[in-house]
Amino acid sequence: MTILTQPVLEINLKHLIDNFKTLKQIAHPAIAAAVLKDDAYGLGAKKIAQLLYDEVKCKHFFVAHGVEGAQIAPLVPDAEIYVLQGCGQDSLEYFTQHKNLIPVISCPQMLYFWKENRPDKRKAVIHIETGLNRLGFREDELQHLTKDDIKMFSMVMSHLACGDEKDHFMNAYQLSNFERLKKTYFPKMPASLSASDGVFLGSDFAQDMVRLGAAMYGINTAPYREKQMKNVVKVTAPVLQIENLAQGQFVGYSATYRANTNRKIAIVSIGYGDGLPRSLSNVGKLFFKTGGELNEARIIGRVSMDNVICDVTNVKNLKVGDTAYLTDDFYTLDDMGRDANTISYEIMSRLGKNQRFIRKYIY
Amino acid sequence: MTILTQPVLEINLKHLIDNFKTLKQIAHPAIAAAVLKDDAYGLGAKKIAQLLYDEVKCKHFFVAHGVEGAQIAPLVPDAEIYVLQGCGQDSLEYFTQHKNLIPVISCPQMLYFWKENRPDKRKAVIHIETGLNRLGFREDELQHLTKDDIKMFSMVMSHLACGDEKDHFMNAYQLSNFERLKKTYFPKMPASLSASDGVFLGSDFAQDMVRLGAAMYGINTAPYREKQMKNVVKVTAPVLQIENLAQGQFVGYSATYRANTNRKIAIVSIGYGDGLPRSLSNVGKLFFKTGGELNEARIIGRVSMDNVICDVTNVKNLKVGDTAYLTDDFYTLDDMGRDANTISYEIMSRLGKNQRFIRKYIY
Repeated sequence: MTILTQPVLEINLKHLIDNFKTLKQIAHPAIAAAVLKDDAYGLGAKKIAQLLYDEVKCKHFFVAHGVEGAQIAPLVPDAEIYVLQGCGQDSLEYFTQHKNLIPVISCPQMLYFWKENRPDKRKAVIHIETGLNRLGFREDELQHLTKDDIKMFSMVMSHLACGDEKDHFMNAYQLSNFERLKKTYFPKMPASLSASDGVFLGSDFAQDMVRLGAAMYGINTAPYREKQMKNVVKVTAPVLQIENLAQGQFVGYSATYRANTNRKIAIVSIGYGDGLPRSLSNVGKLFFKTGGELNEARIIGRVSMDNVICDVTNVKNLKVGDTAYLTDDFYTLDDMGRDANTISYEIMSRLGKNQRFIRKYIY
Repeated sequence: MTILTQPVLEINLKHLIDNFKTLKQIAHPAIAAAVLKDDAYGLGAKKIAQLLYDEVKCKHFFVAHGVEGAQIAPLVPDAEIYVLQGCGQDSLEYFTQHKNLIPVISCPQMLYFWKENRPDKRKAVIHIETGLNRLGFREDELQHLTKDDIKMFSMVMSHLACGDEKDHFMNAYQLSNFERLKKTYFPKMPASLSASDGVFLGSDFAQDMVRLGAAMYGINTAPYREKQMKNVVKVTAPVLQIENLAQGQFVGYSATYRANTNRKIAIVSIGYGDGLPRSLSNVGKLFFKTGGELNEARIIGRVSMDNVICDVTNVKNLKVGDTAYLTDDFYTLDDMGRDANTISYEIMSRLGKNQRFIRKYIY
């Protein structure tokens, strides 16, 4: 019998590269940029920046914050790193230190700040609003830009609200807004509209540059695209204990599960402290490979910080020390996101930041 | 006008120490141990271990994993560090390297492993099951322990399921189970039953050692105890942009919010990538201090990875660069947990692990 205590996070970098290549090919001839914000969705921005730079000669990266750009800048010396949250007093130092950081400017106030404080004459990207109603210049603000203002920019970008829903009216609406605003205010400027989801909406959406994030990491919230991307993240955790649960007994915090018949339970060494969503309490599932079969076990009771409990009454031959599969090719983070009433993006971002995992990168 | 881009996480260590002292006093004469698992709920285990060791002479710590114990062991040389998930093949090295790590053994299989593999004769803690039905020896397993087995332990512990609900039947039930099992199998052994919540249930629950975690970090999921603990965590983020939103316009991913009247919105530089729960989409709130008042603004649309959007129609004098208050004394993580359909523990654990914050420790 093997006794194990730690969860394991496996990140398949080979699949990540394959996904990048697939997406780049679909978006051809647009430039394929890689989105490494939020520490590459928690999977390790430094490692992935280096890999994409070396293996597929990626020279365009997007991050959210200046501090994130500064982390990868020395690793990708002749690449351009676009900073989506732009530049302010608290992040100016990163732009001063790293000449390959390019702020994405989304409002007149930030443009004014950049004009007054930029360390050199490097050009910025302008973010324009087309329907998401998040960051970006509104048209009344574009009308006030001078010719000199416009010369400060090397690219115009926007972002889709509903790219994962192929036939959503918002896609055509945003594309048409983008084309009109581009033509009116930035007639000859390179343009970027689409992140991963937009790549699948047709060549009109690819423009001059696509920003590959979620799909590169194996995320796919659009069921119609099933199996186009390879799964990147697998999580396992060991079974710490297997016990009988007598009829009438309660399980977990606040006693939210009660056994109505005699059951068998397994306590698995992973919890919300490791990034497993607490919203999987009493609704999620995990898996065991025993007796040559893939067995499904329902999560019962509340997910706690370090442990999760599941009903293994019908899982034969399970032993302490065996492996529980939390997410894998057969139950992706997209599936878990659905069960947890959220999206895979959020779960990936949480899982990847935990230091308690034994972390394995597969090449 | 100030332009800022990064969220700020403020951790008040003075309040943390005050909370520790308050809890220790209530539990007196029980030993007050500090729970630093999950990187001290994300707030920084090394820093907090050192602080508690230096300032309040804390000599007993709990972590979940061996790897967590190893991180703090060199900082607290003559303290005992109890490892709740116990010891297995993947964590044995930490116990070999650090003689002050003490495994908590929760099942016969792990006891057997420890007997065969322990690096020296140090004693362990035995975890017994009293009603939570999570980790711990069941009574039929206790019956098989030999006298020599029992001599391997220095303390017996269990854990409450409903400690935050003062009058829950489970508390008395677990205490009575604990007393009976202790008397039967470990008559003279020091005992620990309660974590933070149990400290408030009376001296019977304090036993010989209490394990102070959540309440020390300012968490309080029990409304009847309001204001006993000081708030430890504050989160702010800057306003990146303020815009008018015309009637009929949609906001955010999947267009889940639509303006039915003309509104004013602010885009704030924090998202689920920073640990703000995505489940606050369209239901959460955040705050602004403008015009000498504390103004509340509802989150509208989906929380995205780097940004959250809120309705500031009724917030007067708000400017780009102003500070949004995500959690503070007037809206604690417990409040946010309620709005996000989870608990403060989960949110704290997520917030604390993010590298994008400007992190400020207050002494």
